[in-house]
Amino acid sequence: MVIDVEKVMFYLEELYQCGKQPDGTFSRIAYSKEDQEGRRLFAGWFAEMGISTRVDEAGNLIARMEGRNPALPAILLGSHLDTVPDGGRYDGAAGCVGGLAVCEAMKKAGYIPDHPIEVIVFTDEEGARFGSGLFGSSAICGQPLEVSEEEADGCGNRQKEVMEKSYGIRMEDVWKAKKEPKDVKCFLELHVEQGARLDREEKAIGVVSSIAGVVRFEVEIFGEANHAGSTAMGDRKDALVAAAELIGEIPEIVKKTGKEFTVATVGTIQVSPNSVNVIPGNCRFHLEIRDQEREIMEAVEKNAFAYLEEVCRKSGLEFRVQKISDHDPQPMQDWLRKQIEEATKEMDYSYTILPSGAFHDSLAMAQAFPTGMIFVPSKGGISHSRYERTEKEEMKKGCEVLLHTVLKVDNMK
Amino acid sequence: MVIDVEKVMFYLEELYQCGKQPDGTFSRIAYSKEDQEGRRLFAGWFAEMGISTRVDEAGNLIARMEGRNPALPAILLGSHLDTVPDGGRYDGAAGCVGGLAVCEAMKKAGYIPDHPIEVIVFTDEEGARFGSGLFGSSAICGQPLEVSEEEADGCGNRQKEVMEKSYGIRMEDVWKAKKEPKDVKCFLELHVEQGARLDREEKAIGVVSSIAGVVRFEVEIFGEANHAGSTAMGDRKDALVAAAELIGEIPEIVKKTGKEFTVATVGTIQVSPNSVNVIPGNCRFHLEIRDQEREIMEAVEKNAFAYLEEVCRKSGLEFRVQKISDHDPQPMQDWLRKQIEEATKEMDYSYTILPSGAFHDSLAMAQAFPTGMIFVPSKGGISHSRYERTEKEEMKKGCEVLLHTVLKVDNMK
Repeated sequence: MVIDVEKVMFYLEELYQCGKQPDGTFSRIAYSKEDQEGRRLFAGWFAEMGISTRVDEAGNLIARMEGRNPALPAILLGSHLDTVPDGGRYDGAAGCVGGLAVCEAMKKAGYIPDHPIEVIVFTDEEGARFGSGLFGSSAICGQPLEVSEEEADGCGNRQKEVMEKSYGIRMEDVWKAKKEPKDVKCFLELHVEQGARLDREEKAIGVVSSIAGVVRFEVEIFGEANHAGSTAMGDRKDALVAAAELIGEIPEIVKKTGKEFTVATVGTIQVSPNSVNVIPGNCRFHLEIRDQEREIMEAVEKNAFAYLEEVCRKSGLEFRVQKISDHDPQPMQDWLRKQIEEATKEMDYSYTILPSGAFHDSLAMAQAFPTGMIFVPSKGGISHSRYERTEKEEMKKGCEVLLHTVLKVDNMK
Repeated sequence: MVIDVEKVMFYLEELYQCGKQPDGTFSRIAYSKEDQEGRRLFAGWFAEMGISTRVDEAGNLIARMEGRNPALPAILLGSHLDTVPDGGRYDGAAGCVGGLAVCEAMKKAGYIPDHPIEVIVFTDEEGARFGSGLFGSSAICGQPLEVSEEEADGCGNRQKEVMEKSYGIRMEDVWKAKKEPKDVKCFLELHVEQGARLDREEKAIGVVSSIAGVVRFEVEIFGEANHAGSTAMGDRKDALVAAAELIGEIPEIVKKTGKEFTVATVGTIQVSPNSVNVIPGNCRFHLEIRDQEREIMEAVEKNAFAYLEEVCRKSGLEFRVQKISDHDPQPMQDWLRKQIEEATKEMDYSYTILPSGAFHDSLAMAQAFPTGMIFVPSKGGISHSRYERTEKEEMKKGCEVLLHTVLKVDNMK
């Protein structure tokens, strides 16, 4: 059974056309017309194989290839097709196309698996448009999901209307998308690493040991807006200077408190009144902390805010912290990880076992089903960027490992 | 001759109504309908005294009270009525109302000065709308002014159209607003300190020795946008962390390099892509440096950018600096300063001699005419803010010193 890598690259290129912008950037935001167009293409490729697709109550696109034994639980494959703004063409798409390529290889070889295989395009993994992601995968796991009436994107489009209009999602029906554990053998996700380790160590495959937990905070510092010319340095309550003291120190805090894979990031910042000649009276930013261990995440959080407290105390400022999301670290299923490792060894591909710093639909899926992840290299570790790149040969190896892991799982007694 | 402080406070309150917002803030942006309404009121008060006003080719509103000797050069008083967004009600207005109060006191006493007196409301001092201020005062000094066809405010209104529509300003005629030095005896500006010194030292009057020079830079740091979860701390090129290292260090750089009145401020900042889960690939901010001495300004500039260069070198980042404006420090005229000091002493008001960190129309005017400034206290040093406050008693003293300085200058041989 072989992966047709030329077709894999063709699929990725066609999907890239759904979201490629005239200015060189690439965006296929959840629920957008580009997102819808990408899914139409994707469903069409399954149709060409005679495999039908359906859209579930959470908007997930699901292709189902029946197996010999309809009573057996399904092997789930897949990932997402939505991207961040100015994102990369492999993040998400690789796992969807990987699932498609596995089905194609089987069809072409006339192989019918024992278990049914489902390839899923999950709804809104990135959360780039309405703030919180993993929508489709959380729904399949039966996690309660809420969307407020007010939730809207940057252009004022209400999330509920956007969801219903694009994929017919009605919040009162989303619970019906839940899959029962007895109906699922496992979930396998092929994904680009989005980090530099495989590329640097020249490994073909990453076998994911666990997915980092993520905690996000919104921080607001309250200073005093004042004239930038006539307010002496000693009389200032500059909210931006205080924020800067923390942000500049964060790499050091992570170094002291964290472990090898601990990361902390301030990705957004805004000051008010944001005028060249006024001392910032107010500064807001998001701080995100990720690690494989809950204790480490908490230690970084504690040290960061203790540092900020000291900075603010010195200058007579105040601050407020609000936790806006919190995901526990998730280990991948041991038996499934071993299957991935075995498959990689049999193909004689170099590999390493590594944790995932990024979160994925697997973070949600692991809470309900045996879950495994296969990483392929990201050139220079660049992701969420138009410069994201994975080579043809690397995609081929990733799809092959996915295929052979599926075959192993299918044959497990 | 006495200042009617109740009327002074009434005028300030009426002007405050032109710009007071329902949310508690106050904004009278240059050329806006609030700015126009404020000027209409102001001209009306002169009309009630039988003093006519005109608008010159740079949009300056000029009230002229004739003296006994029309051949003598005019004593100019005044300031501006435009404010920053969410600004204060005394900044600018105090000097305009002060000039009005001086004329009123003379009229009421039946005193006719030898010199003509002109009270000027300068056009667009703050530059809050189109980026560069001191428009009207620079025009009166005959400084070349340019406005590009593209220049527009945040709502896309083109500056040229806005200027013509509001005050009939046509760029090709602005040069005609120039006053010849032979026609100007001096310029005197009453203004709130916008700093904390008078309030802290409990002085009624500040006699301004010089106005700080101001240099402004736009700084852009180029890093690498990347996934905030999967990019190890050591692999990052975080543009915001680099900016933060500089911004957090600026108070220290000023402390080491500057003198008592040196200030440096980062008042604006933005990162791109500004997403909670993406490492900032780009960070832009404005840095402003002010001092009474050109050499000190240059030393702070040099040290700040040397620091940034070192920060960027360490992390493999690049940056670009663009100077967007540059004003030399301006000493006030010695003989005029002495007149202000004498007048203050005669009134037996406490005073101190101090430099101005903020810039004012006087910064422009001092380049062409003998110029003096009188400060009154700002409560807590707060300015460019809805919390800006100067007490009635303080306003009274300021107007009295202005009046008596004018009388002294008028009587000088």
